[in-house]
Amino acid sequence: MNAAKGRFISFEGIDGSGKSTQAKRLAAALEAQGLEVVLTREPGGSAGAEEIRALVLQGDPDRWSAETEILLFTAARRDHMERTILPALAAGKVVICDRFADSTRMYQGLSRGDLRALVDQLHDLMIGREPDLTLLFDMDPDISHTRAVERDSIDSRFEDFGADLQRAMRIGFIDLAASAPERFRIIDAARDIDSIAADTLATIKAHLG
Amino acid sequence: MNAAKGRFISFEGIDGSGKSTQAKRLAAALEAQGLEVVLTREPGGSAGAEEIRALVLQGDPDRWSAETEILLFTAARRDHMERTILPALAAGKVVICDRFADSTRMYQGLSRGDLRALVDQLHDLMIGREPDLTLLFDMDPDISHTRAVERDSIDSRFEDFGADLQRAMRIGFIDLAASAPERFRIIDAARDIDSIAADTLATIKAHLG
Repeated sequence: MNAAKGRFISFEGIDGSGKSTQAKRLAAALEAQGLEVVLTREPGGSAGAEEIRALVLQGDPDRWSAETEILLFTAARRDHMERTILPALAAGKVVICDRFADSTRMYQGLSRGDLRALVDQLHDLMIGREPDLTLLFDMDPDISHTRAVERDSIDSRFEDFGADLQRAMRIGFIDLAASAPERFRIIDAARDIDSIAADTLATIKAHLG
Repeated sequence: MNAAKGRFISFEGIDGSGKSTQAKRLAAALEAQGLEVVLTREPGGSAGAEEIRALVLQGDPDRWSAETEILLFTAARRDHMERTILPALAAGKVVICDRFADSTRMYQGLSRGDLRALVDQLHDLMIGREPDLTLLFDMDPDISHTRAVERDSIDSRFEDFGADLQRAMRIGFIDLAASAPERFRIIDAARDIDSIAADTLATIKAHLG
């Protein structure tokens, strides 16, 4: 693994898939091997993006239309890229990002009307970059939804997504991975935490070389 | 003038051109003639857009990049269109908007790098509508800048735009008007307030028919 060259890795998956826990585990494992790691997340990840996150997620779920919400998330992502991700990559660090553009493609593009094309056009125009590698933490949404509710740790705006929608999301994420196989690796996230962490680390090591 | 058909009118011009005063005068004059008028302004003009406005205009002028600022203004405009402008037009009202997309074309597109093409692409993708009529309040920027500073009423983010930039803005607005003559009318804003108000009302009456 060459620490002098930055790599941009995103973690994706439905709510409760355990990806945030795994992102922390991976960051610790890579740091233990001497790599410089920046662990970040979306929406948010920079001072400005966190303010936009608060604006989007607080209050009545209907306070923003799907289109306005996509614009706000794209503004937050642009700030996150400029202030956090690109400087870290330029400094040769490994950036692990808990959710990135694929989450917008699913949660905004898929869940409310057919806005996928709009999400992609806006991404191409204003962001224009994908992660070098995306790990999709895949699991049965009935299990992940139960876990998310039990943890009581998901943002209120997204708590209302029900089981049917989570099932559609899972299929959407798998379709997305199939459409970009060079970028995606699918991790079976229904196993015990240690097995998933070992699999995740091995996958990243294979990628970093 | 047919009150049953909504019309969308924007007022544009450099800081201190007196367009906000004229917008209020025109709204009062049209209401006195029995028309239903919605007087609004950008950035802002709806509850959500006002929150985004505060996020953009507060704090360090360098806290957002030009690209992120354009995204935030476009998000605010989308909300303003959905929540304020389009419902008023659907109800047959006259909407008078103090600044609209042309201000973004000038202040973000012209002032910081060559972002005009990006502003236009984002507008086409996410807004997709121009006012029916735009009045450009044109005056010598040396006069208008002095007025703006004296009034102490311009937002701090934009106070730093100096005289050279205001001169470039004036030329930019005139070029914009020349590129869309069917939409623009130029008002000489260096005259006394009553003369400008009379000219403005006559121009609007001619447009509304």
